[in-house]
Amino acid sequence: MATVIRDVTEMQRTAERLRNSGRRLGVVPTMGFLHEGHLALIRTARERSDAVITTIFVNPTQFGPGEDFERYPRDFDRDRSLASSAGTEYIFAPETSAIYPEDYCTYINSERLTTVLEGKSRPGHFRGVTTIVAKLFNITRPHVAVFGQKDAQQVVVVRQLIRDLNFDIELVVVPVVRERDGLAMSSRNAYLTEEQRRQAPVLFHSLKVAEQRMREGESSCARLINEMKELITARSSVVIDYVSIADAASLEELTSIDNRTSILVSLAARFGKTRLIDNVAVTL
Amino acid sequence: MATVIRDVTEMQRTAERLRNSGRRLGVVPTMGFLHEGHLALIRTARERSDAVITTIFVNPTQFGPGEDFERYPRDFDRDRSLASSAGTEYIFAPETSAIYPEDYCTYINSERLTTVLEGKSRPGHFRGVTTIVAKLFNITRPHVAVFGQKDAQQVVVVRQLIRDLNFDIELVVVPVVRERDGLAMSSRNAYLTEEQRRQAPVLFHSLKVAEQRMREGESSCARLINEMKELITARSSVVIDYVSIADAASLEELTSIDNRTSILVSLAARFGKTRLIDNVAVTL
Repeated sequence: MATVIRDVTEMQRTAERLRNSGRRLGVVPTMGFLHEGHLALIRTARERSDAVITTIFVNPTQFGPGEDFERYPRDFDRDRSLASSAGTEYIFAPETSAIYPEDYCTYINSERLTTVLEGKSRPGHFRGVTTIVAKLFNITRPHVAVFGQKDAQQVVVVRQLIRDLNFDIELVVVPVVRERDGLAMSSRNAYLTEEQRRQAPVLFHSLKVAEQRMREGESSCARLINEMKELITARSSVVIDYVSIADAASLEELTSIDNRTSILVSLAARFGKTRLIDNVAVTL
Repeated sequence: MATVIRDVTEMQRTAERLRNSGRRLGVVPTMGFLHEGHLALIRTARERSDAVITTIFVNPTQFGPGEDFERYPRDFDRDRSLASSAGTEYIFAPETSAIYPEDYCTYINSERLTTVLEGKSRPGHFRGVTTIVAKLFNITRPHVAVFGQKDAQQVVVVRQLIRDLNFDIELVVVPVVRERDGLAMSSRNAYLTEEQRRQAPVLFHSLKVAEQRMREGESSCARLINEMKELITARSSVVIDYVSIADAASLEELTSIDNRTSILVSLAARFGKTRLIDNVAVTL
């Protein structure tokens, strides 16, 4: 069973000791309520390092007002067991007050990349993400950090964070893990009603259709996006937040995919209060 | 003679190697044009560590538009010689383009503490300071970082940065080093005309008078500040930017020093285009 560390200084001492003994550390930052997607990250970290630190922290600063911070699902005992069996050696699970003490005031902003897509729909979200990720890097001192492609924009922002702030950390990105019917695994899937759960795979289906149409030669992003929206709306009660076809590196919205080799097709949609995201990265 | 490193990755590899061999690293971040104040920082770092890394980098992001970034004095060969003789083992002196590549976009903000005093007079200054300091920490990986009390607000902001972002670094603060007549050492003193240089010690003199008056029982900050301003204006051609009496930890401006034990009296003033700052920390 993984050792649980709740104290920041104890985690730093442990990481320093492990580093000094020549071990390569991998970190997997999570908000807990682990599913197969997280376990794929942990297994990848295990392959890429000698000791995996899984962090479990529902980070309040990346939730906006009215979002689901309070009701975000939590099950620490189950998480501990799952994380351990996937190869976690240390679980870092701090109290909120240890991470954000009363007079906390330092925040990191990626001043490009974060005003589109998720950043546009969730103002302040990435300020919270970059801040907590930098803190967790300084606390766990990893050689390698593993993130999921599920949060595609987060990957782009974290890559920029690592590069810009000179974190000496290798970023490893793991593909989206999906249910059998294609729905991207997410802790938030637990919110879905049976009916919503049945409809939800249409999101991934629309992404695959768009990819297929691109490969067949459709180059108009407006047409592709319209087709996706029509497909989603015809087959579900979901309210679309955005559907985007963007350059995978700069996240700039495209009008045409001509001359593009690396494209991110992504979307966000709401079943009632439950907001789901998904994406496919298309290399042409 | 200190080894000069210009490459970010080479500095990180060197620091990692030194850490792994059990050496305690001290960093002294500077913008070069070293004077006795910097050398005091380096000597302190030498006492507190096994290997001193002095960084020399005139950081563009902490200069505002119209400030003296371009004309900031530079003399690398002299700096190298002085830093070496004070006990520097490595000088990290990167090119600007290595620190801020073309699509750089990640910045750190201390969202309190930086809207007053220097932060008020120099909008964006501390965003540049916290960003470069965090980068230099990640590049030089020190156990201890040495800063000068001359930049009093910078010390408060960097202390908060270290705490908030969980840098596992000990902050050591060295008192202001002064010329014989009391003028705080500063690379910017090189800008002063002979006449301005003759008048400049009135800044420190006014701080000492305020401290003396406090110790004698004067508790009204308005009166203390007025007296300082009158003294400075009577004896110099300087244009006062601000004179402040604030809580030394929160930097909140005070109206009365009653019941305060730790007070920062600080000021900024301009001789023509040359902006000087100074301060005394008063413990009652």
